Amino acid sequence: MFAFNFYNPTKLIFGKGKISSLSINIPKDSKVLVTYGGGSIKSNGVYDEVKAALADFNVVEFGGIEPNPEYTTLVKAIEIVKEEGVDFILAVGGGSVIDGSKFIAAGACIDGDPWGIMNGTAKINNAIKLGTILTLPATGSETNCGSVISRREFNAKFPFMNPHVFPKFSILDPEKSLSLTSHLVGNGVVDAFVHVLEQYVTYDVNAPLQDSFSEGILRTLLEQGPKTFNDLKDYDSRANVMLCATMALNGLIGSGVPQDWTTHYIGHVITALFGLDHARSLAIILPAVMQYQGDNRKDKMQKLLKNVFQVELEDENNLTAMAIDLTKQFFESVGVPTSFSAYNFGQKEVDKILDNISTFGDVKWGEKGDVDLEGVKKILDIAIAANG
Amino acid sequence: MFAFNFYNPTKLIFGKGKISSLSINIPKDSKVLVTYGGGSIKSNGVYDEVKAALADFNVVEFGGIEPNPEYTTLVKAIEIVKEEGVDFILAVGGGSVIDGSKFIAAGACIDGDPWGIMNGTAKINNAIKLGTILTLPATGSETNCGSVISRREFNAKFPFMNPHVFPKFSILDPEKSLSLTSHLVGNGVVDAFVHVLEQYVTYDVNAPLQDSFSEGILRTLLEQGPKTFNDLKDYDSRANVMLCATMALNGLIGSGVPQDWTTHYIGHVITALFGLDHARSLAIILPAVMQYQGDNRKDKMQKLLKNVFQVELEDENNLTAMAIDLTKQFFESVGVPTSFSAYNFGQKEVDKILDNISTFGDVKWGEKGDVDLEGVKKILDIAIAANG
Repeated sequence: MFAFNFYNPTKLIFGKGKISSLSINIPKDSKVLVTYGGGSIKSNGVYDEVKAALADFNVVEFGGIEPNPEYTTLVKAIEIVKEEGVDFILAVGGGSVIDGSKFIAAGACIDGDPWGIMNGTAKINNAIKLGTILTLPATGSETNCGSVISRREFNAKFPFMNPHVFPKFSILDPEKSLSLTSHLVGNGVVDAFVHVLEQYVTYDVNAPLQDSFSEGILRTLLEQGPKTFNDLKDYDSRANVMLCATMALNGLIGSGVPQDWTTHYIGHVITALFGLDHARSLAIILPAVMQYQGDNRKDKMQKLLKNVFQVELEDENNLTAMAIDLTKQFFESVGVPTSFSAYNFGQKEVDKILDNISTFGDVKWGEKGDVDLEGVKKILDIAIAANG
Repeated sequence: MFAFNFYNPTKLIFGKGKISSLSINIPKDSKVLVTYGGGSIKSNGVYDEVKAALADFNVVEFGGIEPNPEYTTLVKAIEIVKEEGVDFILAVGGGSVIDGSKFIAAGACIDGDPWGIMNGTAKINNAIKLGTILTLPATGSETNCGSVISRREFNAKFPFMNPHVFPKFSILDPEKSLSLTSHLVGNGVVDAFVHVLEQYVTYDVNAPLQDSFSEGILRTLLEQGPKTFNDLKDYDSRANVMLCATMALNGLIGSGVPQDWTTHYIGHVITALFGLDHARSLAIILPAVMQYQGDNRKDKMQKLLKNVFQVELEDENNLTAMAIDLTKQFFESVGVPTSFSAYNFGQKEVDKILDNISTFGDVKWGEKGDVDLEGVKKILDIAIAANG
């Protein structure tokens, strides 16, 4: 395996009724900014439970953080943090609220334009302390130091990572996610599954433990994903999916192994340009990336088929086609389409995606850094051809 | 699964040549106490590399921490920490040096007798900052907040746990462990394997992800353990075993599932009374605990046989006997005996073990807290009977 550093100081607080532990996990006398999204937490009881747990704190609120959190929204929250002297941010919601809150936490400690965080002109030396209550299992943002921020005026959706924005704690009460729609549940399952594949289906570096952890998450998602999708009120399957989504992107399985985030990079552009759900963009691009890289990944395709999809392999033919087929079937089984045609996207949209990526400068994606703009074009051609 | 909290802030720094990163991981201007054991680090090059990396620090040393670190030794180090104004402890060694250094780190911040940490009369509110360089993969102490300390005058070997003694970082360079004897390598493999079984072979709580992680560690140890035992200079298998040992006891696989530490509790007494290596005591007791609990653990025995030992099961007969047999074969394959007779222990020794445990007060061990002193007696009877 490769050399690596692994560091993850977020305290994971998991299970029914855990929101009540808020008061012992936020430093005494903190002024707390509670951030949230469109307001679903007010109808599902989470908001009331949070307010009750924070009875002894000085609390301000900032709602309205949208899916694919928008820079112009977040700078308003940064102003509030500065004006009110907020010293703890509690993000209540899914990956977008948490990602947005990481930007707020870091942005409030930056001199000058917080967009500097995204274009690399500002250095993060500090951040307001952050905690989260996760209501949607999907992105893994609750226990990592990454964040993805959008700025619609630029058609931009970019990531940043910084250890200062690790949440101090994250409370995952699966019961609090049982009001989600099947649409969002399916998206979450696909997002987590793709996160694992991007850290697992590359090339073999004799890292059997990391591989076994990845395979364990994938198998659990295969088994528990459709269960939770088809029985939205089932606590047990939701709890298992929630833990999978967290473990998929907390840094553990990617330690010491090659990774390929091409699917996410292209997916972000699709979402930025057309507003397609994050997971739905991934479900189209991942199979195309798998096909493009197929010959380079035979070892891992074989392991994926054998140890995850549990297929008895007779020979080494058609490994890639079989792996793609089973992956697509799985995504469709949780209600997530796997082709551009589901959204009536054709060559015109693909051209726009390529145009946007061509402004990025030098594209060197893939586990070996050899996927350039021409490679991206081929991946998109494969995705278009799959439209039939 | 059960509700749980998981917190592990230790930075894991893994791979060849990583000792050179010491200087950026210890706070500037720290006065560093380097702790170590019997001096093997002076013959295998680790000591020189550490000294070179600490060239810019004020360093004092404390060597001679023994296997099963002894209270009377550690209190001497506590005096040095206080006299010298040490503000960082760097433990260089295996689990004993690291456990001992945790006691030093906490004990130096206690008013009064540090033994209070062990008998529960002293509260740990703080500890000297600690980092480690691991030279022996086995106990997992490098990334957890537990420690086991011995006091020979009392025939005592007891654990303590406290979040203040989590190492800030742990450097795991597998190359630095390639001078170990096969005796110590075999012990380490068994210790890690037992740690996983004690968190896995209990009863099923619908926690498929945790189970898959445990199974992944066990399978990797089964495959890589004999490789590293039989080829002591092979970097890759040592690296894989080293990562397994760390992951076996960093809190991850035990999150949200029942655990049974009976084997460790009895093993500690055997080591305290007779000086038998820790892992060697476990290798005798674990099979006896498996047999004692067999009927209560059929689900997990079946999973262990199928997913770890990869046995095709035809029916549910003899699950326990088969699991015990394969576990013993594995221990023996890395040179660790599995019966008292290997050490000429008989009823006399067992009586002493029971006498010692009977001084503990109320014994309520096992995943359901129903293993009392009578249960321990039965477990020891099973172990004796296995002597043949």
